[in-house]
Amino acid sequence: MTLTYKGAGVDVGRAEDALARVRERIRRTKRPEVIGDVGQFGGLFASPGGDTVLVATTDGVGTKLELARILDRHEVVGADLVHHCVNDALAMGAEPLFFLDYYATGRLEPAVFERVVGAMADACARCGIALLGGETAELPGMYADGAYDLAGFLVGAVARDKLLGPERVREGDTLIGIPSSGLHTNGFSLAREIVSRLAATKGTTVREVLAAPRQELEGLALGETLVATHRPYLREFRALRQAVEIHAIAHLTGGGWEGNLPRALPPGLGAAIDRAAWTVPALFTLLGDLGGVREEERFDTWNMGIGLVLAIAGRDAAAAVRAVPDAIALGRVERAGSGRRVRFA
Amino acid sequence: MTLTYKGAGVDVGRAEDALARVRERIRRTKRPEVIGDVGQFGGLFASPGGDTVLVATTDGVGTKLELARILDRHEVVGADLVHHCVNDALAMGAEPLFFLDYYATGRLEPAVFERVVGAMADACARCGIALLGGETAELPGMYADGAYDLAGFLVGAVARDKLLGPERVREGDTLIGIPSSGLHTNGFSLAREIVSRLAATKGTTVREVLAAPRQELEGLALGETLVATHRPYLREFRALRQAVEIHAIAHLTGGGWEGNLPRALPPGLGAAIDRAAWTVPALFTLLGDLGGVREEERFDTWNMGIGLVLAIAGRDAAAAVRAVPDAIALGRVERAGSGRRVRFA
Repeated sequence: MTLTYKGAGVDVGRAEDALARVRERIRRTKRPEVIGDVGQFGGLFASPGGDTVLVATTDGVGTKLELARILDRHEVVGADLVHHCVNDALAMGAEPLFFLDYYATGRLEPAVFERVVGAMADACARCGIALLGGETAELPGMYADGAYDLAGFLVGAVARDKLLGPERVREGDTLIGIPSSGLHTNGFSLAREIVSRLAATKGTTVREVLAAPRQELEGLALGETLVATHRPYLREFRALRQAVEIHAIAHLTGGGWEGNLPRALPPGLGAAIDRAAWTVPALFTLLGDLGGVREEERFDTWNMGIGLVLAIAGRDAAAAVRAVPDAIALGRVERAGSGRRVRFA
Repeated sequence: MTLTYKGAGVDVGRAEDALARVRERIRRTKRPEVIGDVGQFGGLFASPGGDTVLVATTDGVGTKLELARILDRHEVVGADLVHHCVNDALAMGAEPLFFLDYYATGRLEPAVFERVVGAMADACARCGIALLGGETAELPGMYADGAYDLAGFLVGAVARDKLLGPERVREGDTLIGIPSSGLHTNGFSLAREIVSRLAATKGTTVREVLAAPRQELEGLALGETLVATHRPYLREFRALRQAVEIHAIAHLTGGGWEGNLPRALPPGLGAAIDRAAWTVPALFTLLGDLGGVREEERFDTWNMGIGLVLAIAGRDAAAAVRAVPDAIALGRVERAGSGRRVRFA
C-alpha cells in the first residue's frame, strides 16, 4: 500500500484553501497594535501600557452548533462565539483586544468554514477586535458526520483600578438587567431534547417542528427564534460605564441565573429579583411548557430574557436606565443565607 | 413530559465535580501576576510592562487523542496541548505567561477529565505558566462515543526588540535542529491509517498492532512509541538565547518541514538540509515503510526526528551546539527559487 496524509483523511491543501477564502475579512480586523501578518507561529499584539490587567476568556457555543447546521445558519455560531467571549470580558470591566479561534471537524468543508469563520471575522471587526490567529483541525473519525466544534479565546484589558468584581458590590445595590436576544448560546441541549421529543410525540421530524410557524411566537418558527445571534453588550457596557460607576457584571450563560449572578456578588450577599420587572419572552415559556420544565429549572438553565445583569449604586439606577434604553431595574442586592443566592419575588 | 437539563444530557454538577478534582493542581500554577481566583468570567493577569509584545497562540492535539484513548494514556494529551502552545510561543521569542483550555465531549467522564486537565495543570506548573481559565463543554450527540477534543490557548510576552522572525534571517545563516520525542502532535491520522490497514491485512485488531513489541523499535511497542509526550523546548530555548543571538525559530508541526520551516525564512530564501546530519528515528522509518509512504510525503507530514529548527549566524553554530547538548547543525539558509523552499541533500 502507498499512503498519503490526504489519503488518511487530512487534506492540508483543503485547509489552506478554506483559509484563503476568509483572509481578506480577517485582515479587516487588524488594529494598530497588531504586528506582522497571519501565518506566524503566534499572533503578535503590542502589550497595553500602564497599570493594566489582561482579561482572558474562552468559550464555546455548545450544541447550538447542531441547530445552526440543521437550519443552515452557520454564520450565527461564528458571531455567537465572538459575542460570548466579548461579554465575558466586559463582565470584568475589560475592553476586548484580540481573539483567536479553534475550528475542529471530521472532514473540513471549505464552504461551511468560510461562512463560520467569515462571520467570526465580521463580528470581530464590528466589535473592534483583532482576529489574531486560529487553528483549523481536521480530525477524521472523532466527530459525528458533518459536525464541527468551535472554541474562542479572547484577551481584553482594563486599567487595574477599573477592574469590576464582587468586592465592589454593597448590600442595597441596584441590579440592572439588559434583555437577551433569545437563548444566546446556552441550554440548547435541553431545547433540542424538547424539540426532538415533540417530534417523536407528533410523529413528525425535528426539522418540521423547527420550521412550523408558531402562534405563541407571533407566527415565527421555533428554529428561527432559537438561532438568534447571541447579543453582544459592548455598546451598552460603554454607555453605562460613561453614565454611572458599575460595580460588577454577570453574564447569564451556562447555569442560568443561579449559576452566574452569584459570581458577581461577594460571599454573604444574594440577589432579590422582581419577576414582574420584565416579561419572560414567549420562546422560553413555549419551550418550558412544551418540555414540562419546572420554573426553577428554567431559570437554572436559560437566561429567561435577560442576558446581562449589572450591580450599581441605588442612586445611579435612573441614570443607568436613561443611558441604555432597554435596561431594566430588576431588583437589589441583599443579605443571603447559605442556600440559593438568587431569590425571585 | 418533564424535562431537566441533566435529563437532556448536560449535568452541570458533573462538570463542577470534575473541576473540583483538579482545582488544587490548577492553584499550583498561580504566578504573581495572576489576580483573583478561578470562577470569574475571565482570568486576570497583570499586563507585562515596558515595550513588550504579547504572543498569542492556539493549538489542538489532533487525532493523537484517539490513540491516547485506546491506550488509556490521557495524561499525555493534556501535557501535549501545553507543550505545543509553549513551542509556538517561543518560536516568536516569547516566554509563556498564561494558558487556557477548552475541553469538549459528548458525555463528561470526570475521571478522564481529571487525568487530562490535571496533566495540563502539571505541565503548566513545570513550565512556569499560569493555568488561567478554561471551558468544559458537554455536547451530547456531537462527538463519537467516548471521544473528547481539546484546544489550548496561550499568551506569552517578548520585549519588542527581542521578537524573532524571518526579517532577522540572512543568507548563509546556520540552521540548528533539536530532536523531537516522536510524532509530537502531528501526522497521527496518517499513522493511525497505517496501523488500521496493517491490522486489516494481518486479520488482527488495531489494539494488537499497537501493543506488539517491535524489533525495529528495540522491543518497544508501536503504541507506546506513538504516545510519547510532545517535547517542550523551553529550557533549550532559554539556554540558546543566553548563548547566542537567535534569528528565527520554526516549530515543526502540521505540514512537516516544508509546511513550517519556510515560515521562519524571508521571501527568496530557503533551507538546505543535510540529511546525514541526524538519523531519522526508527519510528518514522517503520511507519513510513509499513504504509509505503513516499519520502517527500514523510517530510511533509511528520517532523522526522527534529522538532525545532533555529536560524543563527554561522559563527554562532559551535556555541549553540555547546549550549544545548543534543542540538545538531542541520544545514544553512540559501537562496531559493519559486518552488519548494526546503532542499534535502
